[in-house]
Amino acid sequence: MSAPIGCRTWAIAEGYIPLASSGTTRELTSHETACILNAGDEEARVEITVYFADRAPAGPYVFTVGARRTRHLRFNDFTDPEPVPKGTDFSSVIVASVPVVVQHTRLDSRQPALALLSTMAFPLDG
Amino acid sequence: MSAPIGCRTWAIAEGYIPLASSGTTRELTSHETACILNAGDEEARVEITVYFADRAPAGPYVFTVGARRTRHLRFNDFTDPEPVPKGTDFSSVIVASVPVVVQHTRLDSRQPALALLSTMAFPLDG
Amino acid sequence: MSAPIGCRTWAIAEGYIPLASSGTTRELTSHETACILNAGDEEARVEITVYFADRAPAGPYVFTVGARRTRHLRFNDFTDPEPVPKGTDFSSVIVASVPVVVQHTRLDSRQPALALLSTMAFPLDG
Amino acid sequence: MSAPIGCRTWAIAEGYIPLASSGTTRELTSHETACILNAGDEEARVEITVYFADRAPAGPYVFTVGARRTRHLRFNDFTDPEPVPKGTDFSSVIVASVPVVVQHTRLDSRQPALALLSTMAFPLDG
Repeated sequence: MSAPIGCRTWAIAEGYIPLASSGTTRELTSHETACILNAGDEEARVEITVYFADRAPAGPYVFTVGARRTRHLRFNDFTDPEPVPKGTDFSSVIVASVPVVVQHTRLDSRQPALALLSTMAFPLDG
Repeated sequence: MSAPIGCRTWAIAEGYIPLASSGTTRELTSHETACILNAGDEEARVEITVYFADRAPAGPYVFTVGARRTRHLRFNDFTDPEPVPKGTDFSSVIVASVPVVVQHTRLDSRQPALALLSTMAFPLDG
Repeated sequence: MSAPIGCRTWAIAEGYIPLASSGTTRELTSHETACILNAGDEEARVEITVYFADRAPAGPYVFTVGARRTRHLRFNDFTDPEPVPKGTDFSSVIVASVPVVVQHTRLDSRQPALALLSTMAFPLDG
Repeated sequence: MSAPIGCRTWAIAEGYIPLASSGTTRELTSHETACILNAGDEEARVEITVYFADRAPAGPYVFTVGARRTRHLRFNDFTDPEPVPKGTDFSSVIVASVPVVVQHTRLDSRQPALALLSTMAFPLDG
């Protein structure tokens, strides 16, 4: 598994951080996540741009994912250059320096029973 | 990120607007959504056609998505040329004037604990 | 939208009909669904084969989907040549006579709050 | 359906086994699953490698999926060479000796109403 796998550019058209949570732990706090697998032998530099309905995009948010490592990045945690607003529709584009695989997951615990969604992001290069 | 990204034609085979909601806010009302990301530099004109089990298709429903903007369109809100019936199975095809990325999401709050589903739409051109 | 769209062969690796339901209506009964969109001008003949962990495949289950129509087929309803067992892991392969788009959805209402999942099926031809 | 179908290498970027379950049966225990459909005529040898945020990958976990059979493998059940830790972010890469189709599903029953997510895995070869 030493050959790089995946794509370098991915899009997630859905994005929304629920305003509230019924859980009190980090684990059960409502969150929106981009899971990034770097199964290759080289560290990945990842830049995420966030798109909105009615304002200019935010970012890039910059992260690194080590070789043969995964990171499940929560949009809730993004701070630099600015936080991602809650209760607001958004989309994102992820650009990596080496091929990675990106999957989108949301945990929504606004009501006293959590809900989940997940889908692969959409790859924009082969 | 100035090059257009995505595809111009997308299909969503699943479609269903639940008849009821336990939430009273817009945020927690049951809804069926097509999230459309236009990460390119040109405004997108988007036409959505809705297919049914036992009648001719409805639409096109016409929208615009600005350059470097996203819109999360709720089928519940469609009115022109006709509303999309609730409690009825449907599918949709989305055709855009420039490349976009489309993701399908449903929030179902019929029961007092919401449920979510999401998946990328299926791209029909490269 | 008169050109045929989609693929002729699709696979769904996940499959499971929950044994129970908390809902009493058809709408809220636990179900496993293959949503099939035929946006083309020709009626589709669809054959579904169901694969199991420890026995030979069942089927084919045969359906038609009219031109410019969608059908959301519930595995729960399949009877010919045999019912699909509940509480049993399965997978399915869908072969259509013309290009279609297939999406997989489950509604699980075993507990008094329903859960949903959905994903595009995996296309096996271009 | 005797020609092999699918791909030989797949990735799932999301992975997480919830720490708790409200259900007491195997059916309702929180679980993370890779569903593997082998619709071909030859038995598949499947090797799964699991990637983490902060340690070297685990595996390979080795399984067989018979010809024209499906297996819904629960990461919870993996023991050799080591269990997959609960409450920990991970990703996985699945390599099969013949073409298969892989779908990722989680059932989360931490709260007294289960949640589900599912998506096709990402194919890494044609």
